[in-house]
Amino acid sequence: MLTIDLNCDMGESYGVYKLGYDELVMPFVNSINVACGFHASDPVNMQKTVRLAGQNNVAIGAHPSFPDLVGFGRRVIAATAEEIKADVIYQIGALWAICKSEGLALQHVKAHGALYNVAEKDLNVALAIAEAIRTVDPNLFMVCLANSMMVEAAKQIGIKYVEEAFADRAYTPQGNLVSRKLAGSVIHNVEAVAERVLSMVRDQQVRAIDGTLITIKAQTICVHGDTPGAVEMIKAVRNRLEKEGIVFRSFGCWA
Amino acid sequence: MLTIDLNCDMGESYGVYKLGYDELVMPFVNSINVACGFHASDPVNMQKTVRLAGQNNVAIGAHPSFPDLVGFGRRVIAATAEEIKADVIYQIGALWAICKSEGLALQHVKAHGALYNVAEKDLNVALAIAEAIRTVDPNLFMVCLANSMMVEAAKQIGIKYVEEAFADRAYTPQGNLVSRKLAGSVIHNVEAVAERVLSMVRDQQVRAIDGTLITIKAQTICVHGDTPGAVEMIKAVRNRLEKEGIVFRSFGCWA
Amino acid sequence: MLTIDLNCDMGESYGVYKLGYDELVMPFVNSINVACGFHASDPVNMQKTVRLAGQNNVAIGAHPSFPDLVGFGRRVIAATAEEIKADVIYQIGALWAICKSEGLALQHVKAHGALYNVAEKDLNVALAIAEAIRTVDPNLFMVCLANSMMVEAAKQIGIKYVEEAFADRAYTPQGNLVSRKLAGSVIHNVEAVAERVLSMVRDQQVRAIDGTLITIKAQTICVHGDTPGAVEMIKAVRNRLEKEGIVFRSFGCWA
Amino acid sequence: MLTIDLNCDMGESYGVYKLGYDELVMPFVNSINVACGFHASDPVNMQKTVRLAGQNNVAIGAHPSFPDLVGFGRRVIAATAEEIKADVIYQIGALWAICKSEGLALQHVKAHGALYNVAEKDLNVALAIAEAIRTVDPNLFMVCLANSMMVEAAKQIGIKYVEEAFADRAYTPQGNLVSRKLAGSVIHNVEAVAERVLSMVRDQQVRAIDGTLITIKAQTICVHGDTPGAVEMIKAVRNRLEKEGIVFRSFGCWA
Repeated sequence: MLTIDLNCDMGESYGVYKLGYDELVMPFVNSINVACGFHASDPVNMQKTVRLAGQNNVAIGAHPSFPDLVGFGRRVIAATAEEIKADVIYQIGALWAICKSEGLALQHVKAHGALYNVAEKDLNVALAIAEAIRTVDPNLFMVCLANSMMVEAAKQIGIKYVEEAFADRAYTPQGNLVSRKLAGSVIHNVEAVAERVLSMVRDQQVRAIDGTLITIKAQTICVHGDTPGAVEMIKAVRNRLEKEGIVFRSFGCWA
Repeated sequence: MLTIDLNCDMGESYGVYKLGYDELVMPFVNSINVACGFHASDPVNMQKTVRLAGQNNVAIGAHPSFPDLVGFGRRVIAATAEEIKADVIYQIGALWAICKSEGLALQHVKAHGALYNVAEKDLNVALAIAEAIRTVDPNLFMVCLANSMMVEAAKQIGIKYVEEAFADRAYTPQGNLVSRKLAGSVIHNVEAVAERVLSMVRDQQVRAIDGTLITIKAQTICVHGDTPGAVEMIKAVRNRLEKEGIVFRSFGCWA
Repeated sequence: MLTIDLNCDMGESYGVYKLGYDELVMPFVNSINVACGFHASDPVNMQKTVRLAGQNNVAIGAHPSFPDLVGFGRRVIAATAEEIKADVIYQIGALWAICKSEGLALQHVKAHGALYNVAEKDLNVALAIAEAIRTVDPNLFMVCLANSMMVEAAKQIGIKYVEEAFADRAYTPQGNLVSRKLAGSVIHNVEAVAERVLSMVRDQQVRAIDGTLITIKAQTICVHGDTPGAVEMIKAVRNRLEKEGIVFRSFGCWA
Repeated sequence: MLTIDLNCDMGESYGVYKLGYDELVMPFVNSINVACGFHASDPVNMQKTVRLAGQNNVAIGAHPSFPDLVGFGRRVIAATAEEIKADVIYQIGALWAICKSEGLALQHVKAHGALYNVAEKDLNVALAIAEAIRTVDPNLFMVCLANSMMVEAAKQIGIKYVEEAFADRAYTPQGNLVSRKLAGSVIHNVEAVAERVLSMVRDQQVRAIDGTLITIKAQTICVHGDTPGAVEMIKAVRNRLEKEGIVFRSFGCWA
C-alpha cells in the first residue's frame, strides 16, 4: 500500500498578527512545521498551534529559522555554523517544551526559509542542523529537500530523515526548485498540481519547467496553508491520490 | 550533617556583550540560574554557560523572565497569566535542549528580576510559573523566595520546590526583601554577609534591617556573581560555613 | 464654520504581516498616527504609510509606544520617565526622517496603547511625553485625551495640543473611557456612532454609558481603521456631520 | 595648515551592558559614530552618548547597521536596497531627534560593520546609503572608505563626503582592508600606528601588508575606542601628528 505524508508550515501568526489558515488546513495534512519565534510566532501562538495539531492528530515538527522576524526568515544571515547549530537547538527545545506541556511529542525538524535554502547547497550548514537535531534527540526526523545536501548531512550524522518534494513549485531539469523570483516558479492550477503530486508519489517523477522528466523520491510533500485557495488545493491533491489508493499518514508512524 | 546549596545567576552575557564573572564564580557555587534569551543571553552564550557548568559539576536551572532585553527583565510587564505561563515554558524548553545537547539535565527553574518580584506577592503569577514547570517536567524544582506566594503556588500545584534566602540583601521585619531602591538594601561587608548566611543556615534566623530577629528557612542561598568582589564574598561565605561543618551540595542531589 | 479632524491609527503592518485597511480608510481621515517600530511597523512599512498619506493629503503624526512588539504595545511596562522620554524622542525622530525623505512634515505626536492609557492618569508620564515633543520640535501638536493628565502636561510644558474624543468608545459618567475589557465599551451601531460624534462636535456633549450627559470638548475624533466595517462607519460619520455643515480638515491647518 | 579628523565608534552600550571607553576616549577624537539601536545602543544610551559628545565639543554622526543586535551588526543580511535605504533613514532620524533634543546637530553618517563592508564593494548598497542620506538631509557628510564604492556612490548621488583610512588596520597592495580573520590585520604597536597615521596624513601613503607603498587620501582617520589601550594609542597618534604641526578638527568645520 503506497503511503505518503503531507506537510505544511503553520503557527506563523505573531502577537496580534494573523497569518495562515491553520484551522482550515490542519484537518487535511499529516505533519506540520511550527515556527519557533525566530521568524514568526511567539509562545502563546505556538501553544495554540500545538493544541490544534493535537486535536487533529497531526504530527508536529520544529521549523527553526535565522533570527529575522522583520524579514520572516527569508533573508540569508551570514551566521557561523556554530551560531546556526545553537540557534536550532534553542528553537527545537522551545517547541519541545510546548509540546510536552500539552502531552504531545515532536516528530521532526525542518529548516525554514533562507536557512532551508542555504542548507540545500551548503553541506556545513546542513551538518550544523543535523548535529543540532542529533544532540537534542536522535529520534527526531530531519525533513530534507530531496537530493539536496541536507540528505547528505543527515546520512553523515546518522539521523533519521525523510525527503520532501513541493506540490506547487516548479523544478529545474537538475531537480532544484525554480527560484520564487522567476516566472512560473509557483503552479496555481489545482488539477495540474494534483496530477504532479500523483506523478511524484506513484511514479517518483515529475516534469521540470523545461518539460524534462526528472526523478524525485519523496516521503513527504510540502503544501502551502497561507493562500486563500490552500484548502481546495490540498483537498484536490488528497482526492486525486486517494482515488489511486494512496494512503495519507504522518511519516513518523510508518512501519 | 547540615547541608546547603549556593545558587547564582549566570549566562547573562549577550552577543558581544559580557556580563558577570562566570568562570571565576562557577567553581564555588552549587546551582546556577541560566538566562534564556528573554532578559539576557542568546543560544551561543547559553551553550557556553551550560558547558562551563558541566565542567564544574554545577547543577543547572532555567532563569525565565519577562521579554525585555533592553530592560534586563527588571521592569514589570503587565502580561496575562496565560502569556507568562507560555513564556516560561518556552524558556525552560530552550535551555533544556541546550543542556540535553551537552549531555546534561535541568535541576530547577527560578524566575528572574521583575517576574520574580511579581511572583513573590501575586499568587496567580506564581501559579502560572508553577504550572509551566509542572507541565514541562514535574521533577524540576521551583526555586521560591522563602515565605512568599511562590511557596504557596508550588504547594498548590504539587511540584518540588526549595526556599531561598539572599546572602547580601537586607530583610524587612516581615521577612520581605528591602527594595533595591532603598539605602542599606545590599550588604557589602564580607564578614557581615558570611555571619548572616551562617545564622540563616544554622539557626534559620537573620536580623532584619530594623534589628528584629526574623525566621528564614532556606535550602538555597542566592549569591551574586556580577560584582568585582563576588568571588571573595562567596569564598568567605563558604569558609565560614565549612568551619562549622556545613556541607555544600546542589539541592537536587540531597537525600 | 465648525471644523473637526478625524484621526486614525495607521501603518501597523509589520514585515510580511498585514494589519488595517490603510488604503481604504486613508481618503476619509484628516490625520494619521503612524506606528514607529516599537509596537508595530518597520522602516519599509512606515515609508509606505507615509507615501500613502502624502498622496491623500493627510497629516502625519508619530504614534510612539512602549517597546513591546509581541504585545502590540498594549501591556504597561514599568519604565521610568527618563526611559519613556528617550523612547518617544527616538520614535518621533525615526518617523520624522521618513517623512523628510518623502518631502513631508510631521504634524503631531499621539501616544499608543498602554502608554496612552498610563499618560491619561499619570502626570509624570504625560510630562515625559510632552517634554520629548518639546525638545524635538515645539511646533508639533500633542494629541491628548480630552480632560486627561495629558492636557495638563501639554499646558505645563507649553506645547501646542489638541484634545481628542473617541467615536465608537463608551464613556464613564466621569468622562473616562470605559475599559475595553467591559461589555459595551465599544459601540458597533453605525448610525449611533454618527449621532454621537455629531453631538460631541456640535454640542460638545455625549451620553455616558449610564445615560448621563457629559461634556467633551475635542478638536479631533479618533476612528478605527482595522475592522472590516471601518470605512462604512467613517463615511457615515462624515456624511452625518457634513449634512450639518461641519467641515473636515487636519487640525494643524486650522486658522 | 594640514588638518585631520579622528573618528571613533561610540555609544555601543546596550541596556545594562557596557561597551567601550567612551568617557576616556571622547576628549581625544573629533567625530563620533553613534550606534542607533540596530546593532547596539538604545534611546537612553544614545542620549548619554550625545550629551557626552556635546560636553566635549565632538561632532556627531549616525552609525546605521543591519538589524542584528545579537550579532552586533557584523553579519551580512541579504536585505534589498530598498530595505537598507529605509533602515538607514530610520536610524538617522532616531539619532537626529536625540541630538535635536540636546540642542546639537548631526554632522555625518557612516555605515557600521557588515553594512560598511558590503557598501565598500557593492555600488547598489552604497547608493542606497547615499540616497538615504540625501533624502533626509543633503548637508550630512557620508563617511566613505577611501577608494571604495562608497565614494563613487556619494559622487553619483551628489552629497558631501569624506574619505577615511584606518589607523591600526593593515591594507592590501590594492588598498583594501586586510580581513580581520587574517593574521596581521590589526597593528598593535603604538609607535608603528602613530607613524602610519603620520604617513597617511602628511604623505597620503602607507605601507601595505606586503611592504608595497600605496596611496591613501583621507580626511578622517578611524581609531578604536573599545580596547584597554585605546586612549594611549589615540594620544600617541595625536602627539606624533601635532609635533609635525598637523591640526585636529571635525571635518564638518573645515573651511
